[in-house]
Amino acid sequence: MTRISESTVRRLSHYFRVLEEVRAEGKRMISSYRLAEREGITSAQVRKDLSYFGSFGRRGLGYNVDHLRNEIQAILGLDHRWKVAMIGAGNVGSALLAYRGFQEQGFDVVAVFDSDPSRIGKNVGGLVVHDVAVLPDIVRSHGIDLGVIATPLRAAQEVADALAASGVHGILNFAPRKLFVPSHVTVRNVDMTMEFESLSFALTQGRAGRRRRSGD
Amino acid sequence: MTRISESTVRRLSHYFRVLEEVRAEGKRMISSYRLAEREGITSAQVRKDLSYFGSFGRRGLGYNVDHLRNEIQAILGLDHRWKVAMIGAGNVGSALLAYRGFQEQGFDVVAVFDSDPSRIGKNVGGLVVHDVAVLPDIVRSHGIDLGVIATPLRAAQEVADALAASGVHGILNFAPRKLFVPSHVTVRNVDMTMEFESLSFALTQGRAGRRRRSGD
Repeated sequence: MTRISESTVRRLSHYFRVLEEVRAEGKRMISSYRLAEREGITSAQVRKDLSYFGSFGRRGLGYNVDHLRNEIQAILGLDHRWKVAMIGAGNVGSALLAYRGFQEQGFDVVAVFDSDPSRIGKNVGGLVVHDVAVLPDIVRSHGIDLGVIATPLRAAQEVADALAASGVHGILNFAPRKLFVPSHVTVRNVDMTMEFESLSFALTQGRAGRRRRSGD
Repeated sequence: MTRISESTVRRLSHYFRVLEEVRAEGKRMISSYRLAEREGITSAQVRKDLSYFGSFGRRGLGYNVDHLRNEIQAILGLDHRWKVAMIGAGNVGSALLAYRGFQEQGFDVVAVFDSDPSRIGKNVGGLVVHDVAVLPDIVRSHGIDLGVIATPLRAAQEVADALAASGVHGILNFAPRKLFVPSHVTVRNVDMTMEFESLSFALTQGRAGRRRRSGD
């Protein structure tokens, strides 16, 4: 298979979501135009993206919804369940454990870890919090695929090192710092703090601009 | 002030976080080298970023931690509190309301909205869920600055339109779709679903590669 860019993968995620939606509406066929809709993607781009994976569509008829959905699901690896370890049972970790969306997508949190003695042994979201010291054993014995880092900033790199050394291949990082990992590990970052600060900055500069223009 | 790029703003966020950390450790001065640390930033880049906002540092001595922290806090607009409306009281919205981190940063959720009659009137995270129909009135009467969209995909654009029309200037979007907004509105996207799918894709392709190499 040709090497697929991250932006193609993101568009495949989008197509998958649209297909789930039209499937729920009971539609059988979908056009590349409809798949392109709402994301500022052209229908030519849709056809190009899908052509990497074989020819799904028929000219003038569009794509069969079920078939295309199943193909993209398999391409994205969403046709089986993934085992996830959550590291950090504080604010972020607890909120993520309370969120049911990941499970619906096929990501099962099977273990939770923390280094804080006051949290270890407690029950969070139906799971007992383990000491992070036993992470390598549990990752290996459970065959955990992914780690979610929801620790404070300063613990994040050490946790990433432990995950990588234990054989985890993917990390979703909520700690607001860049992680350095071996090449066999993929990291994705979600930095809500930074997004909020970036909005705050935009609003502050906007306000200053509006004040200048209105002569305050 | 020169127009500041988004990547500069993100680095300022990072510096702010490091400064908060060293302040908590009781340090009085910090070098550009230490500020650069951990993010793959050079110390020359740090000095360049900070030079946009005036000259804070002294050669050979570094930066005064308190002073620089306060300056960056003001630049990022974190020296006062922002009023936030949460739209969507489902999985994502509830998890975000349970998360205390935003409040610590100065972002107060003052109103919650949903369109689902079974949720309207209920108490979520200490706030009564309003009908999204009254959003414009409440945004105006409370002077709400920011909206957080935690609705299903299909409702997100309509909510963004209502927020923009009500005078909100910033939107943090958790719905997995692109939003179209007027130029006075800034949008930042957090798409956890897509990050998970992107990891799932990387792991699936990695596995296929490992299987091929090991001849399974």
